[in-house]
Amino acid sequence: MQDSQTQAFAGKVLVLSGGVGGAKLVHGLANTLGADQLTVVANTADDFDHWGLRICPDIDSITYALAGINDEKRGWGLKDESWRTMVAMRRLSGEDWFQLGDQDIATHLYRSMRLSNGDSLTDITADIAQRLGVTTRLLPMSDDVVATRVYSDRGEYEFQHYFVRERCEPKVERIEFIGIDTARLSPLVKDSIADPELSAIILSPSNPFLSIDPILSLEDCRKLLKNRGVPIIAVSPIISGRAVKGPAAKLMEELNMPTSAHGVAEYYGDLLDGFVFDELDAAELDVIRNTGIDCRLEQTLMTDMASKEHLARVVLDFARDLKR
Amino acid sequence: MQDSQTQAFAGKVLVLSGGVGGAKLVHGLANTLGADQLTVVANTADDFDHWGLRICPDIDSITYALAGINDEKRGWGLKDESWRTMVAMRRLSGEDWFQLGDQDIATHLYRSMRLSNGDSLTDITADIAQRLGVTTRLLPMSDDVVATRVYSDRGEYEFQHYFVRERCEPKVERIEFIGIDTARLSPLVKDSIADPELSAIILSPSNPFLSIDPILSLEDCRKLLKNRGVPIIAVSPIISGRAVKGPAAKLMEELNMPTSAHGVAEYYGDLLDGFVFDELDAAELDVIRNTGIDCRLEQTLMTDMASKEHLARVVLDFARDLKR
Repeated sequence: MQDSQTQAFAGKVLVLSGGVGGAKLVHGLANTLGADQLTVVANTADDFDHWGLRICPDIDSITYALAGINDEKRGWGLKDESWRTMVAMRRLSGEDWFQLGDQDIATHLYRSMRLSNGDSLTDITADIAQRLGVTTRLLPMSDDVVATRVYSDRGEYEFQHYFVRERCEPKVERIEFIGIDTARLSPLVKDSIADPELSAIILSPSNPFLSIDPILSLEDCRKLLKNRGVPIIAVSPIISGRAVKGPAAKLMEELNMPTSAHGVAEYYGDLLDGFVFDELDAAELDVIRNTGIDCRLEQTLMTDMASKEHLARVVLDFARDLKR
Repeated sequence: MQDSQTQAFAGKVLVLSGGVGGAKLVHGLANTLGADQLTVVANTADDFDHWGLRICPDIDSITYALAGINDEKRGWGLKDESWRTMVAMRRLSGEDWFQLGDQDIATHLYRSMRLSNGDSLTDITADIAQRLGVTTRLLPMSDDVVATRVYSDRGEYEFQHYFVRERCEPKVERIEFIGIDTARLSPLVKDSIADPELSAIILSPSNPFLSIDPILSLEDCRKLLKNRGVPIIAVSPIISGRAVKGPAAKLMEELNMPTSAHGVAEYYGDLLDGFVFDELDAAELDVIRNTGIDCRLEQTLMTDMASKEHLARVVLDFARDLKR
């Protein structure tokens, strides 16, 4: 652990992020950096169609968090939300396993309408963010469709069907990112990686293989990042062997990955220059350091704005130290 | 005027109807007849796409009225409605000229989803009605798209754009039903016309050329009805030269049609055996009778359930008299 430094961070920061957990650190970074310093790349492999609408859970979680309109307590969706369309839809279709709030539905309607008009997810995401008052640059990883598919002991599922409808109950045998081989990494993401002012790349505390891996797997993204020559730092989403949010730990177990900070560090492997993980996992410090990755132990649980901003500063300070 | 008779009507009744005004008489008929006696054919030429959703204003007005969940006071949509999706959509798109309530949106979402799955509007309409507890048989006039187009002094409009967004302000030069020449009359409507038990055909007090004419213009519908050999009765939507609801009178004026009960009777011409119009227009009785159409003068303004049922009984009694 270190004292947080008060110097402003110089240069630009690129963050790869999934939804809820990642969005917290993104929010902390957005409050710590200038709007022109931060670019967020969102995973879109969880995206799916529901009620004929295009739903982008990670993009929306990040957008809503940055706009300050997310429901912190529930952990997803919008605060001050209502559910009247869903109740009426249940009456018509009998289907209500995926909860969409009345205000949230507007986002999906607007996005679906513009997608069918031929607009790109990149442009639509930027416009929604702008309309909601978000100044941080948020980019979908791709404008092409990538869809996480879960193969389990009970059959195949679209990710949200497995995650929400089946409550992660089926035992996962493997996952696949349908479309990953042909989807192109967003040109704007490529530009951000190539930006001469880029000073740090951060892998947010999202699920490493469900949220971060799809981004890294697009074209030669992993190599582009690795060869960029700026510090790459991951923040562990695992604390004391448990995923803070989401099915990471259960999935890692079923896919025979260690459910530990060490497991996360190993998963990212030589991509990382630095790794931030929780003080509660201090026992793993030596084994992770022995893989050649620089480490920071920190309280990584983000329960309020102060803890998000604190973790953001820790990561940025770490990046500055690594750059020296 | 005549006293309402209390005998039950024998045989089946086919009603052609537009939205709000027509839906009132339909509701009265549904309360007066057995569920197996009444078939309602709804105009779909006002249907349009909005926010990527398929909106069928006349089908929905009739369905909601029959389900007893329509907002009588507002005159359209659902009662106990809320508008949170619309407010959120306004923030995103800046567009809110067509008001869609949160519960109502579920209907459009459900319909759009099923249409894109390849289901027919006929099947979807029946399923929505059934889910909302409606027992009356409601048929879209066609499963093919017909779209009313308004040509005005300010240019061309989709009907709802002219009607709602432009508040009927542009001066109409002509209207056209795009697709009417190739669209097929619903086979189930044809079956209903051919039904040996059919005893009356009613043109509800909807706009004659915007709501009823599209139905009559499908294939040889007008001829099928005319040659069927059962009484055809229209109820005038015009009272004292004013449309009870909607832009009928203004349109009729701009299209050089008489804005009167007589004008409505003339418009339908030799299709009609009987014509029901308002006591306030008693001065027109002779001129209409002279065209060879049997007439009933009645209080045709439907302000509550009792007046809807009363007018329904008047029309059914009239049909029985004409059949003798």
